[in-house]
Amino acid sequence: MDNRIHIFDTTLRDGEQVPGCRLNTKDKLLIAEELESLGVDIIEAGFPISSPGDFESVAEIAKIVKNATVCGLTRAVQKDIEVAAEALKHAKFPRIHTGIGTSDQHVFTKIKTTREDILVRSKQAVRWAKKYVDDVEFYAEDAGRTENAFLAQVVEAVIAEGATVVNIPDTTGYCLPEEYGAKIKYLKENVKGIEKAIISTHCHNDLGLATANSIAGVQNGARQIECTINGIGERAGNTALEEVVMIMRKHNWMKAETGVVSKRLNAISKLVSEKMRMPVQPNKAIVGSNAFSHSSGIHQDGVIKNRDNYEIIDPAEVGVNESSIILTARSGRAALNYRLENLGAKLSKDELEVIYQDFLKVADQHSVVEDEQLKELMSAHQAIDA
Amino acid sequence: MDNRIHIFDTTLRDGEQVPGCRLNTKDKLLIAEELESLGVDIIEAGFPISSPGDFESVAEIAKIVKNATVCGLTRAVQKDIEVAAEALKHAKFPRIHTGIGTSDQHVFTKIKTTREDILVRSKQAVRWAKKYVDDVEFYAEDAGRTENAFLAQVVEAVIAEGATVVNIPDTTGYCLPEEYGAKIKYLKENVKGIEKAIISTHCHNDLGLATANSIAGVQNGARQIECTINGIGERAGNTALEEVVMIMRKHNWMKAETGVVSKRLNAISKLVSEKMRMPVQPNKAIVGSNAFSHSSGIHQDGVIKNRDNYEIIDPAEVGVNESSIILTARSGRAALNYRLENLGAKLSKDELEVIYQDFLKVADQHSVVEDEQLKELMSAHQAIDA
Repeated sequence: MDNRIHIFDTTLRDGEQVPGCRLNTKDKLLIAEELESLGVDIIEAGFPISSPGDFESVAEIAKIVKNATVCGLTRAVQKDIEVAAEALKHAKFPRIHTGIGTSDQHVFTKIKTTREDILVRSKQAVRWAKKYVDDVEFYAEDAGRTENAFLAQVVEAVIAEGATVVNIPDTTGYCLPEEYGAKIKYLKENVKGIEKAIISTHCHNDLGLATANSIAGVQNGARQIECTINGIGERAGNTALEEVVMIMRKHNWMKAETGVVSKRLNAISKLVSEKMRMPVQPNKAIVGSNAFSHSSGIHQDGVIKNRDNYEIIDPAEVGVNESSIILTARSGRAALNYRLENLGAKLSKDELEVIYQDFLKVADQHSVVEDEQLKELMSAHQAIDA
Repeated sequence: MDNRIHIFDTTLRDGEQVPGCRLNTKDKLLIAEELESLGVDIIEAGFPISSPGDFESVAEIAKIVKNATVCGLTRAVQKDIEVAAEALKHAKFPRIHTGIGTSDQHVFTKIKTTREDILVRSKQAVRWAKKYVDDVEFYAEDAGRTENAFLAQVVEAVIAEGATVVNIPDTTGYCLPEEYGAKIKYLKENVKGIEKAIISTHCHNDLGLATANSIAGVQNGARQIECTINGIGERAGNTALEEVVMIMRKHNWMKAETGVVSKRLNAISKLVSEKMRMPVQPNKAIVGSNAFSHSSGIHQDGVIKNRDNYEIIDPAEVGVNESSIILTARSGRAALNYRLENLGAKLSKDELEVIYQDFLKVADQHSVVEDEQLKELMSAHQAIDA
């Protein structure tokens, strides 16, 4: 099995369709350039038929992207596909992403039709798209809640029509990892011609499982992950690009490699957060401001002795300058001494003990003890070796 | 196997030891009361020896909590345990949580000792704690990176000393769900006396997998989950309480029940975020401000037809009043019509089409289109049926 996992970034499509995240074309171009430098394989640039602004952005992004595939979303509707093809006409590597709902909920309640009709429309959509581009991705919307046997039928039919990628979205974020992994395995084992297409994951985070589901997909044969910077997207968002990339880097035994330059993750996280006005919580994995901060005494002591005690990622690997030893009421003597030494102090064990007791009183009053307060503590004890 | 999963909340210990999250005793008491109303089984109230303020908070919480177990953290150190016992003396259901590192990294690099010594110290710590309380939980720090055979030896030894709960922390957040699940399964199958204790998960979110790992633990026999409100905690935080609780509710077939009153999740999330000054990102699962917002046209149309098309959780179930249909450039005619009808308008298909085209132009200029702008659009077309 091929070890290369394609990273399909949909920050500018699924991420951008979120309340308040709207970007102008200039900012979209800036982010597209940064995504290309990051090393993603596919940039989903927008949903061209959805608005004139979106059409323009997709068209402009198609012109400037040099190495990545540029993708446009459509419904399984002829007009959508024609408009997407028009928006993508200057792309070096264009891809049309089309599809339709396949779960009973979507087929019978939302679209109010039959499974037979869904099969017909699915094949038709791929045929329309193939008139314009070679690279056609098909999504089976709500695949997470679709019965596997029918899903396999749809996937087999669209591959027969020439779909190069088959996307299996857990649209509502409902699946558990074992369930989602088993779905991908079922397709690998039951779809004739599955080797002709790449299976893609597209997981939503409604239950906090998007990352785990995507990884379960890869472990069962998927070779593309759809994801966004900071995990932004509809509702609770999509799979976070930075998380899946770092999981595969840290678990070499998975033999799953991406082209992502991990050192750029922190910078692009900040750019997307700022431009889209979407704050990243401090405790966000990989890119949160606290992701590499150690504050409890036990942890600080351990990290000062050896980073590997509490860190599985060297912060520099994701573009963060250093892990922080932050002083709070939970900090121990080792952390206090480490920070005092950084300020030029050299203390005996007894001196440290005296200052530590005072430090605890200050720390109980303040959430974080800063260098200024440390200097006051030291001068109160005339302990600065200056 | 017992279906009841104990929820061990460590918001006030692991969550509170984070830079900037420091609370005073009054706020800690408020949160402890809310945690009790939420229905958690165990409240880890602090690390009593770490500072005078923490000691006081644990002691005060111990006095007011009526139904939940109140737990204090210690190292495998006699003094820590004595101080914790003192802080917990007024608790109706006190628990001492003690432990030591068991991974090679912790044993040989951090503690610089032998495995034999770790076994001796582990047993000794449980014996000390048992002098004060019946309910003693033991943590094998960095269990996620501990060789299973040695971990089983430690767990067996502490259960023989009377540990009632054995906590298997993935301290660095390194494990994949299958790996962590297999570890719990190994303990269930290889530890003599394992039926005398409850196995607990304590997962960190460094790779975005804390929730999935906790669930994998439960599927393999763990009966306690350690977690925090909003997933706050050291570095990238802990397992988010709201996520594991809702996963078990939504996947009935797991036969895993908790005592949590889900309708209180949204309110306590806001309380903890505000008191600890830790923002929750809009795309946070369950409790993010966008978690139930629909903005793309396809999704809005689907939700207006039937919520189940794109929602697996009724927002009311977690204390959110309603899911939002938010108007952006990605919204379709159905969503526009839904919102215009809410403003009292009744439009023909042709009238809607005209307004929709103007709406798209406004939406391309603004991230979110509000009621005020809708009213302007309607009066421009004199379409209000007033």
